[in-house]
Amino acid sequence: MTSMQTEPDTDADQIRQAVDACLESFLDRRQLPSNLDEAVRYALLGPGKRARPRLALAWCRALGGSDDDSLPGGGAVEMIHAFSLVHDDLPALDNDDLRRGRATTHIRFGEAMALLAGDALMSLAFEIARECSEPDRVVRELATACTEMIAGQVLDTLGGEGDRPWAQADPLDRLRRVHRGKTGALIRASCRIGAICAGVADDSAELRAATDFADAIGLMFQIVDDLLDEEQSAEHVGKATGKDREAGKLTYPGVVGIEPARDEVRRLKEQALRSLESLGPKTEPLREICHTLSVRTR
Amino acid sequence: MTSMQTEPDTDADQIRQAVDACLESFLDRRQLPSNLDEAVRYALLGPGKRARPRLALAWCRALGGSDDDSLPGGGAVEMIHAFSLVHDDLPALDNDDLRRGRATTHIRFGEAMALLAGDALMSLAFEIARECSEPDRVVRELATACTEMIAGQVLDTLGGEGDRPWAQADPLDRLRRVHRGKTGALIRASCRIGAICAGVADDSAELRAATDFADAIGLMFQIVDDLLDEEQSAEHVGKATGKDREAGKLTYPGVVGIEPARDEVRRLKEQALRSLESLGPKTEPLREICHTLSVRTR
Repeated sequence: MTSMQTEPDTDADQIRQAVDACLESFLDRRQLPSNLDEAVRYALLGPGKRARPRLALAWCRALGGSDDDSLPGGGAVEMIHAFSLVHDDLPALDNDDLRRGRATTHIRFGEAMALLAGDALMSLAFEIARECSEPDRVVRELATACTEMIAGQVLDTLGGEGDRPWAQADPLDRLRRVHRGKTGALIRASCRIGAICAGVADDSAELRAATDFADAIGLMFQIVDDLLDEEQSAEHVGKATGKDREAGKLTYPGVVGIEPARDEVRRLKEQALRSLESLGPKTEPLREICHTLSVRTR
Repeated sequence: MTSMQTEPDTDADQIRQAVDACLESFLDRRQLPSNLDEAVRYALLGPGKRARPRLALAWCRALGGSDDDSLPGGGAVEMIHAFSLVHDDLPALDNDDLRRGRATTHIRFGEAMALLAGDALMSLAFEIARECSEPDRVVRELATACTEMIAGQVLDTLGGEGDRPWAQADPLDRLRRVHRGKTGALIRASCRIGAICAGVADDSAELRAATDFADAIGLMFQIVDDLLDEEQSAEHVGKATGKDREAGKLTYPGVVGIEPARDEVRRLKEQALRSLESLGPKTEPLREICHTLSVRTR
């Protein structure tokens, strides 16, 4: 069974290399001022799983498309993701010094450059998106998701200030809406962009399957994150409250309890796998991704 | 001659109203979280000339297109412009408290919201751009111009740090490159988007005329700005050095001298008007805009 277990990693490594090569080639051609170029590459090509482009490529392959069709779209999604991390880490928002064991972009290059490099990453995402096989529809997905992500960040960081209906909403509804924005929107865009680059129509069953799969794993990903936060805190701090919850943020286990949150992960995993049922054998890598994301609860 | 002088203003007012109505209708439909929506509208719909959408609409009209074709593209350019102002005003960059007599967005709504509202304005620009008659080519123009503008801001604010060839370049070349990025790229996109929305081809003489016109008035606009800065400082401070020059920034009159800079304005104005010669009578509003921009030297 060793090959079964190493294959997905090999696949993930290969995709990571292909995505990074696509992004580097684009930046080589783009010829930004060298200090901006350096900051953009630092933020974009550092350690990381490239989970979103991997979803795009896996969906494109599952529906019969080639990597050449989907790579620029996957790269575009990774650029939007990198932009959001650079800006979220800034002192005005999360004020983080470290990300994945390295200095954050503003610690390394200064706040002004981090602000502008984040801006450039968003703008460049729309440039590279135009290089894929379905530029118009990919730009649509990318722009919508990017706005939704920013709106989710506003709801999460700045809460419902000045937004009466939001402040009065049910905590679970608020939590779902934040998750749908902050992480869900870009995961949805990744899967849909992959499917679109394979050539499926907007009203096709395949695009609906990609959307359903994305919405299930997107929420699952976030609940797993919340659960890990609870468990790590319990281990390190010696009590059963997470640091997000301490920081006054709503978390899934905080609102519904730990066991119901675990049940929800199982339910969402089944829902994601069910959405793949009608699509044939090429969806195996998508099942693997779904499994990898859910198994982090243990 | 009174009607000759009031007509352009009436035209400008009418365009301003149409652009703002288009942007407001888009934001009404987009349904952002209400606190984000408020900050976005504050940054986008406050006082201002809407000079860039006016160029887009004037070019579209001049080449036989309708305002319905070009309004979303003009609105998109205005959103990119508004995004750049919000981020440029932030403490990490220019740290400005006031713009056009009002508190800047971060003074009014806080730094976190200004950062996110700026991000949202860029993302929304790509959403509204898709509503015009040539979405794919308009997105191309918009994305390229947006990246060029950010690159120009990097060169202007952060200079050539880490960029040896840049630091050693001729001051006039550096100045032209900053201007081409910071103001020129978006003015070029405005004119080209207007022409594209009228339906002209990428390799047409009309699109080349729009590009030539834009490049001439874009540089002219910036030199006039530099000259005004010199003259106002001379008036207020009582000496012939501008505040930009005092701040260590390169300015056109600072590099070539005041009279040669005025000569350059005249030369660029003639160049802009020459680019309109083959296009017929509907270019009168473009001539007016060119005149208005150049006459600010007096």
